[in-house]
Amino acid sequence: MLKAKVYVTIKQSVLDPQGVAVQGALHSMGFQEVESLRIGKYMEVELNTDDREEAEARLKVMCEKLLANTVVENYRFELEG
Amino acid sequence: MLKAKVYVTIKQSVLDPQGVAVQGALHSMGFQEVESLRIGKYMEVELNTDDREEAEARLKVMCEKLLANTVVENYRFELEG
Repeated sequence: MLKAKVYVTIKQSVLDPQGVAVQGALHSMGFQEVESLRIGKYMEVELNTDDREEAEARLKVMCEKLLANTVVENYRFELEG
Repeated sequence: MLKAKVYVTIKQSVLDPQGVAVQGALHSMGFQEVESLRIGKYMEVELNTDDREEAEARLKVMCEKLLANTVVENYRFELEG
């Protein structure tokens, strides 16, 4: 069993309206120090395999095909244990 | 300027319908090895301060008050730079 952490973030050149809204809310709550805030996704995936190399290759395909929209998002993942 | 990474995850005892849906989609795409998948949020926050201790304390308040719903979600954050 391998565990993966997948991070999907919006590319720097793409507007993140959700992040802008949350930043505005924080400002209005008095957190003026928040200069920027961008929101992405964080996924914890358990894989029923012990082959690290295969798991990595297949995770890459999952990200490209479903988990991230590579037109506007970047992804990266870490495999552990 | 400090940079923080904030992770918000759904508590283990709480159902994650989005994760279940994505897991189902991966299964139907042939990724049978996916045993579980849970989806959380990942935020990158830039703070206009150099006081690490204060930044940590204030980030905690931001998480408790807005960024996470502590009834059903856990959060953790890392400060860097």
